[in-house]
Amino acid sequence: MLLRIDHVGIACRSLEAAIERYTNVFGLTVVAEETNEEQGVREAMLATESGTSYVQLLEPLSPGTTVGKFVERRGEGMHHVGYAVADVTEALAEIGATGVRLIDSRPRHGSMGASIAFLHPADLGGVLTELVQPRADS
Amino acid sequence: MLLRIDHVGIACRSLEAAIERYTNVFGLTVVAEETNEEQGVREAMLATESGTSYVQLLEPLSPGTTVGKFVERRGEGMHHVGYAVADVTEALAEIGATGVRLIDSRPRHGSMGASIAFLHPADLGGVLTELVQPRADS
Repeated sequence: MLLRIDHVGIACRSLEAAIERYTNVFGLTVVAEETNEEQGVREAMLATESGTSYVQLLEPLSPGTTVGKFVERRGEGMHHVGYAVADVTEALAEIGATGVRLIDSRPRHGSMGASIAFLHPADLGGVLTELVQPRADS
Repeated sequence: MLLRIDHVGIACRSLEAAIERYTNVFGLTVVAEETNEEQGVREAMLATESGTSYVQLLEPLSPGTTVGKFVERRGEGMHHVGYAVADVTEALAEIGATGVRLIDSRPRHGSMGASIAFLHPADLGGVLTELVQPRADS
């Protein structure tokens, strides 16, 4: 079901500073940058050389957002992991049937035109887990 | 320099329970299981379908180990991210030159015969980061 690790989501206080770090230190390239009001973040996707796994940098739009609270409580750092799946609707049905709670019972829009859904960390050993069905032409 | 995300390292209290979760919920397969006394963990590598990115489950050998302290302080959850590189010695030299502190100034033995090195999270926005040069025949 899980094709590969699609990305790690990293919470940061300043998107600009984090982008500078990842481009300078690791030579990564920003391939997308957007504001996601629904998730309360400004974000950037940086591609590894494979072109199929990414570092996703997340700056909270305000302290009251999910990522804002995360940064307040735990500081900057890894926020979630995203796995690529062929069909996120099918994957949600299969995973839901095992008893894992779904944060999103239906897919919603994610970065770069993907369909995504989050699974509850309380049922996955504290790991906020995202399923990512990349855009068909990507 | 970073070829792809090689793995996410996930700290857990019980390796058996975590393996059961990841195999049942996601259909992942255990491809290696070992005890690493140096790092103070029992660990399992579970492959995604790509065969090139993994979930690494880490159970501390005792509360005083690095992962043991992590679990005490923050609970179970994501512990580090590992990126595949072609040459870990070269990558360490390049990264060290940018001012990022190296936990390992020279590569050491990692899971499945890889050469690995850790970078300091304090210089990488709170993210404990590992470089992984997979075994040549893998």
